[in-house]
Amino acid sequence: MNRVANTLISGLLLTTALSGTAWADDAKKDAVEYRQSVYQVIKGNFAPMAQVVKGEASYDADSFTLRAERVAALSKMALEGFIPETDMLSMDVKTGAKPNIWEEWDDFKAKNAALATESEKLLEVAKTGDLDKIKAQFAETGKTCKSCHDKFREK
Amino acid sequence: MNRVANTLISGLLLTTALSGTAWADDAKKDAVEYRQSVYQVIKGNFAPMAQVVKGEASYDADSFTLRAERVAALSKMALEGFIPETDMLSMDVKTGAKPNIWEEWDDFKAKNAALATESEKLLEVAKTGDLDKIKAQFAETGKTCKSCHDKFREK
Repeated sequence: MNRVANTLISGLLLTTALSGTAWADDAKKDAVEYRQSVYQVIKGNFAPMAQVVKGEASYDADSFTLRAERVAALSKMALEGFIPETDMLSMDVKTGAKPNIWEEWDDFKAKNAALATESEKLLEVAKTGDLDKIKAQFAETGKTCKSCHDKFREK
Repeated sequence: MNRVANTLISGLLLTTALSGTAWADDAKKDAVEYRQSVYQVIKGNFAPMAQVVKGEASYDADSFTLRAERVAALSKMALEGFIPETDMLSMDVKTGAKPNIWEEWDDFKAKNAALATESEKLLEVAKTGDLDKIKAQFAETGKTCKSCHDKFREK
């Protein structure tokens, strides 16, 4: 899968190689919109799980597992939207992506991969239906969001 | 899965039951943003597949299959964002959702399900690596988008 991820990212990098053209600007806007949309859909599935974990909504095993499955899949989609020159200082569209994402790319990639790893674990735990374990793993997954936001996202 | 889908939608409907409150307005905006994001991520994966089908990009079997897998998964996520009173006339956020979506809900649901069915078929065909069959099924999948947009989305 790593090779595939690299192919997907290379495609986007190629697109921005023609920097300075309107076409490259469109590709950058598309990339920002893509990654923001991925996070929005993650949030849309994460929030109802949080309600269950906090006891604000009743636990339905199938729904919870489906949402965990979605987050696990979506967590692998955002990275390819972080093409170069799409930080908050370079873009005239709203993005909270700090320039240090590209300065510390390996760390950003690792934090991104941590979300994928922990949300895969959440999916596995969700399948057991053990709500105590689910709550614990949900917290671990949430920590990976915070860890990345704290360092790489403008408040 | 139908039961689960109904549970997810019921949750959203419950949220909007308290109509007229700021909370309900937030829920509606969230729902619009959610469905738009789902379609945006679909588009972000559909467009590179279209380039391959048109011969504008080279065919990489693994990447194509991964994108088909994503579209198949995402095609099942949008419907729950279409909660009542979130059409283009009711909302002050930008949406092209025509009011007839809710007047002809069964047809809208069927057109939505057609995308899921055809994109599942596309995923199956993608796995064969047979580019001719992939092109044919890609066209069938695209038709389900158009069929729904023509009737239910403002130009």
